[in-house]
Parts: sequence; C-alpha cells; structure tokens
Amino acid sequence: MMRDITAHSIPIETFRVNRECVHVTWRDGRQSDYHHIWLRDNCPSVWHPTTRERVLDSMSLDPDIQPASVRLDERGRLIIDWPENHTSIYEPAWLRQYSYDDQSRAERQPQTRYWTRDIVEQLAVFDAPPLMTDDHALLQWLRQLRDHGFTLVRQTPRTDTAAEELAGRIAYRRQTNFGVRFEVVSKPDANNVAYTALELKAHTDLPNREMPPGMQFLHCLQCDAEGGESIFVDGFHAAAVLRDVNPEAFDILSSTALPFRFHDREWDLRWKAPVIQLDSDGALAEVRYHNALMAPLDVPPGKVKSVYWALQAFTAIVRQPENVLTLTLQPGELAAFHNRRILHGRSAFNPASGRRRLLGCYVDADEFHSRIRVLERSQAS
Amino acid sequence: MMRDITAHSIPIETFRVNRECVHVTWRDGRQSDYHHIWLRDNCPSVWHPTTRERVLDSMSLDPDIQPASVRLDERGRLIIDWPENHTSIYEPAWLRQYSYDDQSRAERQPQTRYWTRDIVEQLAVFDAPPLMTDDHALLQWLRQLRDHGFTLVRQTPRTDTAAEELAGRIAYRRQTNFGVRFEVVSKPDANNVAYTALELKAHTDLPNREMPPGMQFLHCLQCDAEGGESIFVDGFHAAAVLRDVNPEAFDILSSTALPFRFHDREWDLRWKAPVIQLDSDGALAEVRYHNALMAPLDVPPGKVKSVYWALQAFTAIVRQPENVLTLTLQPGELAAFHNRRILHGRSAFNPASGRRRLLGCYVDADEFHSRIRVLERSQAS
Repeated sequence: MMRDITAHSIPIETFRVNRECVHVTWRDGRQSDYHHIWLRDNCPSVWHPTTRERVLDSMSLDPDIQPASVRLDERGRLIIDWPENHTSIYEPAWLRQYSYDDQSRAERQPQTRYWTRDIVEQLAVFDAPPLMTDDHALLQWLRQLRDHGFTLVRQTPRTDTAAEELAGRIAYRRQTNFGVRFEVVSKPDANNVAYTALELKAHTDLPNREMPPGMQFLHCLQCDAEGGESIFVDGFHAAAVLRDVNPEAFDILSSTALPFRFHDREWDLRWKAPVIQLDSDGALAEVRYHNALMAPLDVPPGKVKSVYWALQAFTAIVRQPENVLTLTLQPGELAAFHNRRILHGRSAFNPASGRRRLLGCYVDADEFHSRIRVLERSQAS
Repeated sequence: MMRDITAHSIPIETFRVNRECVHVTWRDGRQSDYHHIWLRDNCPSVWHPTTRERVLDSMSLDPDIQPASVRLDERGRLIIDWPENHTSIYEPAWLRQYSYDDQSRAERQPQTRYWTRDIVEQLAVFDAPPLMTDDHALLQWLRQLRDHGFTLVRQTPRTDTAAEELAGRIAYRRQTNFGVRFEVVSKPDANNVAYTALELKAHTDLPNREMPPGMQFLHCLQCDAEGGESIFVDGFHAAAVLRDVNPEAFDILSSTALPFRFHDREWDLRWKAPVIQLDSDGALAEVRYHNALMAPLDVPPGKVKSVYWALQAFTAIVRQPENVLTLTLQPGELAAFHNRRILHGRSAFNPASGRRRLLGCYVDADEFHSRIRVLERSQAS
C-alpha cells in the first residue's frame, strides 16, 4: 500500500452505508463519501509490494459492486468484506489523506502567493552554502520558491558549475536546444536576443515549446557593464489583475492558442498555446509570454484584432512600475524563479563598458515538486 | 525575416483594402484577409538579422493602424507605406505561407492516420543502417512515425547504445527519473511493473508527468524467455471509436483530470490530466492511460462512478482483439512509437525459461517535429 501516510490522527466518528458509498463522519465534523467501487479499487492489497503500482485490473471491477459488510475494528480502522471473499482494511489516516469531498479537495489546492514590487521589502534571501549540505534549509528554500515563484540566493560560488550544482540538489537539469547550461553574454552572430546587449522585455523562456522549462536558476558571475538591470514580474499577479479589470481580455488570452517559434540553423521549434493557461479547475496554471518569439498570428481572422487588444491590455499591467521588481544582480547572486509564472527581463547594457555574464539552467516542475514531497517525507516529524 | 519560405509560386491576382484589412485574392481563387495590425507587426524588417526574433515591440502598435497606401510592385510583391514613413515589402510566397483564412488553417492540420491490427499487413519497416547515414531515409522514417505513430526498425546493432544512437539522429534524449536509457528486464526489488515478469497491459509510459515522453525507442536485445509478446494499440483510433459509439464516456474522459502517480525511494511524481486530451480545435492531442499508475481518484464525488464507467468503456475498445497489434520483437528489432498516442504492453513471461531484455529511450515531440522541419528545409527541392 501507499506508505507515505502523514500523521493525521483524526478518527472516524461514525459511518453509514448506502447503495453508492460509505458515508464517513469524522471526529472533527467533516463528512466524506467513499464510493464502493473506489474502495474496492484502492484496497491496500492492490498495490505491488515493491513497485507500489496497482496490480489489480480496475477495468474488470463491477462499477456497481456492493460490500457484504462494513464495520470499524477496535483500532478504528474501516473493515469491508466483499462478496468475492476478500476483506479490505483501511487506515483512517489513509482514508482522510485521500478523501475527495469538496472541502478536502479544496484544502489540497496550492497556496500560491502573488506579489508586486513590494516583495523587495520582504524578499526571501537564502545563502548557497547551507542549501548545498542541509536538507532542512533546502526544503525551506524550495517551499518559498514554490509559493512565491521567486527567491534570491547569495554566496553562490563564482564558478561556472555552481548554478548546476545548486540545481542538482533538486534533480537533474532540463536539457533544451540551448544545452543543459546556457551562458547569457553578448555574442557575435547571436541566435537569441538574450545573447545580444539589447533590452530584453519581461518574458518567459522558451514559450515555443510544448512544456517550457519550469524552475530557472540564473547565476551572475560578472556585471561590470553599464546597464543590464534585471527585472522580474509575477505573471500570475498580472493575470489575476487582468481577470479583475478586463475579464474579456482575460478570456481571450486564456482561450486562444497563439503561435510561438524559435528557429536557427539546427532547430525549428514551434508550439501554439494560450498566453494564460488555466487548469481544469479554472486556476492559473501558466503564463507564456514572449513578444520576440511570437510567430505571425495564426488564429481565425475574426480574432486577430481582439488578440492584439488583449495582449496590449495584459502588457500594460506587466509593465506597470508597481508590478516590476528591479534588481542588479551582483556576482555570486542567483535568481531562482518559476519560469512558467514569473516573467524576467533586463535593460540594455553597454558591452563596451565591461562584461556582463550570467549562467543559467533549469529543473522542471515535476522533479521540483517531487523533491519537495520526498524531503517532506523524511522531515515530517 | 523568416527565411524558410517554401516554394509556393501562387501569385496575388488582386487585392482590396478596407478599414480592417487587406483582402487578397490569389490566382488559384483562395481569398485571404491580412489585418493591418498583423501586417505591420510582421513587416519583414521587424526580425533581428541573426536571431530571427521580433525586435519590434508589438505591444506599442496601434491596433487600429491604417496603411497610407497599398500596391503590388512589378514583381508581384505587396508594398505598404505606413503613416510613420515606413515601407513594408511582403513576398507573396511568405504571405501565402502564413495566410490565416479558414481554408489555409485547415490545410495545415496534421494528417494523422489511425490504425487497427490490420496495420501489420502494410507495416512500415525500416532498416537501421541507412537511417544512421542517409538524411533522406531518415526523413521518410520520421514522417511515417509522425503520421502513423508506429514503425518497426530492423537490423539495429545488438549493442547497448544502438537505440540511443538511432534516437540521436533526431535529437538529444529526454531524461526521466528512470535515466536517459532504461533497461526492461525482470529485476529483483523492481520499482516499476515493467521491471518484473508480470503482464503489462496496454498503457502509455509516465502518465504521472505533466508532459510524458514523446517518441519511444524500444530495442530488443534478447528474447529467449517464453511469453513476453509485445502489443501495440493506436490510442487515437480507440478514442475516435469511443467518440462515435459512446460520446458521453468520451466527454467524461476528455474533460476530467485523473490523478497519476509514481513513487519510490527517490521520487514522488504526480500529475492530474484527462485520459483523452484535446487541442484547442477539439482534435485528439494525447492519450494518457496506465491503470497501474492511477492514484486513488480525486474527483468531485458525483463523478466517481461515471469515471469508472467511462474508463471501462474506453478499455473495452482498447482490448478489442481487432485493435491490438501483437509482435514478438526479435533481437535487433526496434519499435519506435509515439508514447502519447500509442499504447504498448506485453504478455507475462517466464524468466526461468530464458532472458528477455529490451533497452529504451525517448525523444520528445518538440525535438522530433523540429528535426522533421529542418530536414525538410534542406530536402525541399
């Protein structure tokens, strides 16, 4: 069975059985329905002992299955006898963890906190050395990054591999067409505006991919050039403001797939997706925004003007000074941020006045959240 | 400007201008509207010469912009003077390539071909050696894989690196929690049902990830064990049949996010998504199906039974013998298939009777399609 039962100690107060489900009333008053088919399908015995995968063929179960008997044992566990001569034993902590009544499902929603430039006054700053050795410090950092989407790390060693080593504390790095590690410097014959000295307006990286990279780690190694201040904008905050002040523009940007494209000698990477992506509950899931990589609009003709109009409405919010966090990254500082939520950019710089050199890498959201769960498993006490 | 103009030689017959757009009539009779704002935004001069990214800030354009004059020059190019004293020159081939009238957009939809087990009679089989050296053969293979989702490759060298080398002809490999290369053998203390000798029902790999791997390359190195036949099912065909025969079940599976999970000592990877995913035009985009990795259902209580019912309806189609391609992979054979469309599985085998050993790796869909486009660029003639 699934072993990561967290220590919910709420007991089952009482239960009753109807044709569809076992209706449980918990000691704290919550009421949860567990359908018979759900209970049979998730009997603790259906999980393979080492793979923890389900070995029962759920597809062969009768959706109208009925228990032969249901009771609580002396330890408060729910015991069900099934007609096929099989008995299932459910720990209350497990049932509570997987309860799917509306309240329980709402509680499991992520606690994302949106921000404006005022975040600078309470900016969560972490030091790299403890993150490299202390799992407790690591977990605190990752939770901050998960909830705010942005953190600053100081005292990162001024070596070319330091960002990757820090990211490696989470998981392997996401490879892209720019490699596993990318160097942000002004280059001749650049294949990407980031690799020039031009202004880079606030954007998310690689929107031309089906799944743009998740967490980005951008490490400053040198900043002797004039200009080149970094900017960060909470795209979820901007999208939430847009939803409030201009719901029509929000609807257009969250329902119309726009084409993005990157192409050079080796690659031609294209994807179409809405600028604002919602999850199946209608919550903000992703912002994908990069004017430089917008391909010629490829939407029904009747929508062309309204897409431009909606993009401009969103952009006006993104560019409002109160929403823009401006930082001049110093050597040894590393910005860690959620690339699918936080827009980043920089002012132009003068490459003749000195060098500006950043190294970056990514860890995807799946691996990031997995690492938090595994750290929480061992630090649950 | 974008340089990959394909050789459309259809000239502009005539045009007229209204408040919103330039309405073009092509010599073949097609009619395409190009909005003024769209034309200004995609003026060939807006692209950076080496990065090919847009350097114009589209967000500062007036959505109601009007041309000062529009004409065709002696070479048939569309010439627009803008009030800001800027002139744009559009090649007809470029305009036709990016036309967004309904017919043009429909023509650009992928030509996916669904299949049943009868595919075996016309199975596209490729030999590995030419794929390693000949870009023309490579492109033919990749197009087949794109359109059918399944191909068989023979004469793959019987080395542990051959699958990766073949996949490397497309792009870098996708890393997952199972590594860049995975070995499918029966192992003690397996963390995955694939690594046992048990039956593996038809499934897609890694549905517990936000973006499961795209193209899968599964190379047989040894098959001396009794049993272990491979099966493949076109999930798009099964989904299309479901849509025809049971639209209610199809609606449930394409609109309800179901939880998938893999967890072992190192990882706890979870994602919720519908079994059948549609793109913004309502076309089949992905199938995500793996009973062993379904976490306890976490949907509104009123939907629990209908989700089981819909899953069983889909499963009945997936398991219909006429939909199942059965192959016993021989050493040196490699199955290449779209993991987000084609379900694969195997019958149980007897590890005491001999060895069965496969090596696999993945290349994601973005890189796969990019490679086709880049090959087509050089083989366009």
